[in-house]
Amino acid sequence: MYNFTFNIPTKIHFGKDTISSLSELKAYGSKVLLVYGGGSIKKNGLYDTAMKILKDAGLTVFELSGVEPNPKIETVRKGVEICKNEGIDMVLAIGGGSTIDCSKVVAAGAKYDGDAWDLVLDGSKVKAALPIFDVLTLSATGTEMDPFAVISDMSKNEKWGTGSPYMVPTMSILNPEYTFSVSKKQTAAGTADMMSHTMENYFSMENADCQKFMAEGLLRTMIKNGPVALAQPDNYEARANLMWAGTHAINGVVGDGCSPAWCVHPMEHELSAFYDITHGEGLAILTPAWMEHILNDDTLPMFVEFAKNVWGLSGDDDYALAHAGIDALKKFFFETMGIPANLRAVGITDDRNFEVMAKKACEGSKGSFVPLSKDDIVEIYRAAF
Amino acid sequence: MYNFTFNIPTKIHFGKDTISSLSELKAYGSKVLLVYGGGSIKKNGLYDTAMKILKDAGLTVFELSGVEPNPKIETVRKGVEICKNEGIDMVLAIGGGSTIDCSKVVAAGAKYDGDAWDLVLDGSKVKAALPIFDVLTLSATGTEMDPFAVISDMSKNEKWGTGSPYMVPTMSILNPEYTFSVSKKQTAAGTADMMSHTMENYFSMENADCQKFMAEGLLRTMIKNGPVALAQPDNYEARANLMWAGTHAINGVVGDGCSPAWCVHPMEHELSAFYDITHGEGLAILTPAWMEHILNDDTLPMFVEFAKNVWGLSGDDDYALAHAGIDALKKFFFETMGIPANLRAVGITDDRNFEVMAKKACEGSKGSFVPLSKDDIVEIYRAAF
Repeated sequence: MYNFTFNIPTKIHFGKDTISSLSELKAYGSKVLLVYGGGSIKKNGLYDTAMKILKDAGLTVFELSGVEPNPKIETVRKGVEICKNEGIDMVLAIGGGSTIDCSKVVAAGAKYDGDAWDLVLDGSKVKAALPIFDVLTLSATGTEMDPFAVISDMSKNEKWGTGSPYMVPTMSILNPEYTFSVSKKQTAAGTADMMSHTMENYFSMENADCQKFMAEGLLRTMIKNGPVALAQPDNYEARANLMWAGTHAINGVVGDGCSPAWCVHPMEHELSAFYDITHGEGLAILTPAWMEHILNDDTLPMFVEFAKNVWGLSGDDDYALAHAGIDALKKFFFETMGIPANLRAVGITDDRNFEVMAKKACEGSKGSFVPLSKDDIVEIYRAAF
Repeated sequence: MYNFTFNIPTKIHFGKDTISSLSELKAYGSKVLLVYGGGSIKKNGLYDTAMKILKDAGLTVFELSGVEPNPKIETVRKGVEICKNEGIDMVLAIGGGSTIDCSKVVAAGAKYDGDAWDLVLDGSKVKAALPIFDVLTLSATGTEMDPFAVISDMSKNEKWGTGSPYMVPTMSILNPEYTFSVSKKQTAAGTADMMSHTMENYFSMENADCQKFMAEGLLRTMIKNGPVALAQPDNYEARANLMWAGTHAINGVVGDGCSPAWCVHPMEHELSAFYDITHGEGLAILTPAWMEHILNDDTLPMFVEFAKNVWGLSGDDDYALAHAGIDALKKFFFETMGIPANLRAVGITDDRNFEVMAKKACEGSKGSFVPLSKDDIVEIYRAAF
């Protein structure tokens, strides 16, 4: 286990009726920027409920709406401008990972003199941020309790993750009921996203039993509850378990001390940056291809553990067992959860960008479980094609 | 999963050489009360190292030494007096759970007008506390990242747990090397203590897969690494895994949303209050007796899960499997870890206090997995006798 500092100060209000905790925001000032996406929160009543609580608490609400599924730097810049012009005291995101990620960089940009894209390229430039709050409506990215945000500049085909301790939310409201209306496609993609976070942390050479055995517990939670949420969208317990497992997948509990760097995410970010696909679907497609590519005598023991402890498989031949674990993951993603099984199925019909994408992703995978060369990544893209 | 607020703001510095983080204390004032136990930190050099860092940071250090294994209210009162007389700004505990628990109530007592025992009887009376810091030297209680403290008044045979959000440490330093010198007896008792915390959280009727599957991971971590630490006291990875698992056992990760109340701890607190035994040994002795007492058709499914997922057992007869899981726990505690197997073996040679102890413990077990009557508890004490 390597040295680490564990620090997740976000206060989580989890469960039914927790929206009333929005009244706590009045302790942080009087002007709040409300950030949301395409307007589904207006249809389901969450917007009205939140506005009433905020106004009853004496807060003045400004709005930034229309945050994209892969949030764009242009939208961030709009939010920063509102914050600076209006003297905003805090940012409140209501939505999924994209809305919250956008809000985080808006909050940091409000305290930064230059262009917010600088903060996406280099999180260490974030030296302060407005307090960040959120109401989560999609279980997937874990951004509700982590320091990270992913922002795209589609004009440059660039999508980068950034992070700063100043961008950790102060308080997040997690009500599983808000995810009842999430579509089958997004429920499946969200489950794949949180499973990917857990696996990125899990596959490491560190002797970190504590983190790894807990990660196995998270994966089992997602594998059990993902299909229930697909079949019964309003099953509270299934939605609650997915929501809380998704938060723990990336808040440090199963990563700190164990996982030095990720590598499937950098590969997927290139897919999204070039083709604007759904992040969780990209991860689901790439992960088994990545596993098959890196399976060797050194990594074999981890794959055997994965097959046994996550999928409950057994057998005497370690390689057969490792492959069976990977096959179980494929079957789960592409049959049980109904995720498209390859890149062509999500609309990527040519391979002409693979070399340039691989070159960029290669930088991001440095220091990971098995560091990947540009050629490795091209092979993985082709295997997933 | 029931509603909960998850909030563990403690910053953890985990690993080798993290003691240098003590210099962060200067941000909290100039006068620190250093609290420690019997003086082992003077023998192993930790006292000198800490003093140098504190003094280099410009802090003035006052001292409260001699904190007992089951910390006494008299010692808390001494600490409170120093804080009030000297205008202490913060409290730094260096030691195990007892030393840290004592420091927490000292820190709260310093901001309270009445007698500190009031705060032990009723944590809601804590309305403020000095900032609390600690350097952990024993993996067991998890107090380094929780709001709880247990204090005894031996003159009244009373030992009570108290808790307040104000008593959560601001920062804790966890260096597994500091636990290399922990004796076999205390290593075993500490492992039993953290396993008990995990099991108190785990055995619940809530549909909380996320918390339960992670708890299984923690138990497997302890079961794997406890015996390694006994056999190789200076095995860094084993000590690190025990240390971090012990922290997670009670910081809310596997308890919040899942475990409404505990019941083995209240029973053990009476043993310690009347006989001053080692807490972890008392828990190890009582837990299997409690399990056998509450195993019935309603609780059977949880015990089957415990046998399968924690101990890797299998079988067609659920009751046989449940008993095999409990037997595996007994074998682990009393053979593998060498913990005394019954109350007589820890010096409790008469049963005359069982009725009065059971009456008090009964209050504490309200709302737990299986609420226990006074008679139930007497039976459990007798079974463990």
